[in-house]
Amino acid sequence: MSNERAIGIFDSGVGGLTVVRAFMERLPREELIYLGDTARVPYGSKSAKTVARYSKRATRFLLSQGVKMVVVACNTASAYALDELRASLEVPVLGAVEPGARAAVEATRSGRVGVIGTLGTVRSGAYPRALAAAAASLSKRVSVVARACPLLVPLAEEGWLDDEIAEAVARRYLTALRDEAPELDVLVLGCTHYPLLRPLLERVTRDLFHHEVALVDSAEAMAQAARAELDGRGLERDGGGAARLRCCVTDDARIDEIAGRFLGRPLDGVERVDL
Amino acid sequence: MSNERAIGIFDSGVGGLTVVRAFMERLPREELIYLGDTARVPYGSKSAKTVARYSKRATRFLLSQGVKMVVVACNTASAYALDELRASLEVPVLGAVEPGARAAVEATRSGRVGVIGTLGTVRSGAYPRALAAAAASLSKRVSVVARACPLLVPLAEEGWLDDEIAEAVARRYLTALRDEAPELDVLVLGCTHYPLLRPLLERVTRDLFHHEVALVDSAEAMAQAARAELDGRGLERDGGGAARLRCCVTDDARIDEIAGRFLGRPLDGVERVDL
Repeated sequence: MSNERAIGIFDSGVGGLTVVRAFMERLPREELIYLGDTARVPYGSKSAKTVARYSKRATRFLLSQGVKMVVVACNTASAYALDELRASLEVPVLGAVEPGARAAVEATRSGRVGVIGTLGTVRSGAYPRALAAAAASLSKRVSVVARACPLLVPLAEEGWLDDEIAEAVARRYLTALRDEAPELDVLVLGCTHYPLLRPLLERVTRDLFHHEVALVDSAEAMAQAARAELDGRGLERDGGGAARLRCCVTDDARIDEIAGRFLGRPLDGVERVDL
Repeated sequence: MSNERAIGIFDSGVGGLTVVRAFMERLPREELIYLGDTARVPYGSKSAKTVARYSKRATRFLLSQGVKMVVVACNTASAYALDELRASLEVPVLGAVEPGARAAVEATRSGRVGVIGTLGTVRSGAYPRALAAAAASLSKRVSVVARACPLLVPLAEEGWLDDEIAEAVARRYLTALRDEAPELDVLVLGCTHYPLLRPLLERVTRDLFHHEVALVDSAEAMAQAARAELDGRGLERDGGGAARLRCCVTDDARIDEIAGRFLGRPLDGVERVDL
């Protein structure tokens, strides 16, 4: 397999561009193909069966583009479809849940970890499972408290990232977490939209808890895990020249408006594809 | 065509159950089949082409169930797909936009009408077009100001209908409308989710404008228009016995949790269907 091939990253919408951003920073030589399934976004409120069906179509598209690795940036798709995708694909498949779970277990001292995400991610129980597995492999004890935060995605998409409404919403969700687990010292941002709200979430967390709470960004954790995986398999790209990003979406209605905010830079161009 | 056949109502998600509720009140003898395309919800942030494709699949399902009328409860689907559906179907097709637009033109005295809805509905320009057509037919002059309110749907789904967060969000959106059109005296609730927020929207509107603003609920307007249409065609059901509601969804993840809130009563049962 050629190391020059691209890494395929998919998410249900534009949120996964925060993952692309982390990959561009940590794996600057790799070619990236991003697929945002914006015609079916969001996955977070849909059932396991529906999400698995959509995820299979999305990975089929990435494979047809000849990628050397598939990154399932969507937490919900990782929660519902990762095992099935891994069993059926011949390239390495990296999910959104395991890397963040491992980073959380490494960071916690109290053993009490919080997770925020979409309804689908929380309902799936994927984080508690992945945290338990990571804890076992690191000989630690961890207990988890998870909470769905449906308003955070539209706040991020509106660009209301740090005002009184965003703060009141964050405060309501995080107060519920604190009341349930006051000794929590790690909070996993289990949705690709949430890194945009990170400064706000940090401030509110600091305010509500009387000790330090480490925020684990699953985008960062994924980029680190991908680097380790490519390294372990000798699959790193060593070609010269700047790496490119190809950005594909299944619906282009809002992409120009909000993609740049998620990617942290303007987008060069977007292809619309049918799955 | 048999008058005993059901009326088919479809929406992108559960929001259209507010339309079902209005139909049950105003057309209590009619059988209803509801289809919520919850596997693809929301339509509001998607492009015209995608929404038209989904709408065609949804109406095809309703026709296969033998309905005598199709009601497109989704404002976005009405905005993007109604003409195409009307041209291709042999049963009457009622949209969400025209009835509300007509009610708004009838109600306005200042001639300044506001519309709130999803991004898709606002972008489509369907309300300004329908309001202009209704104004022409009633020999009135109307000018329109429209605003997308993406946070109102998740607020309604969370059940945060009238608290300080919902109020701050409503106040922000409606203040922008008031600053643009202080003489506005009619506000169209152009999304099936919004009737749940009606008490809040009424209070905030009263607070922000220094005169009465009439809220037009497009669910109510649709039920009235359907009654007139059935009456005009002699299609009213005159069968005895209580009318039934059949509720179908394409994904059943959240339906039990929130459907009752939209319908105003518990749901008897839900069928999952593939389109």
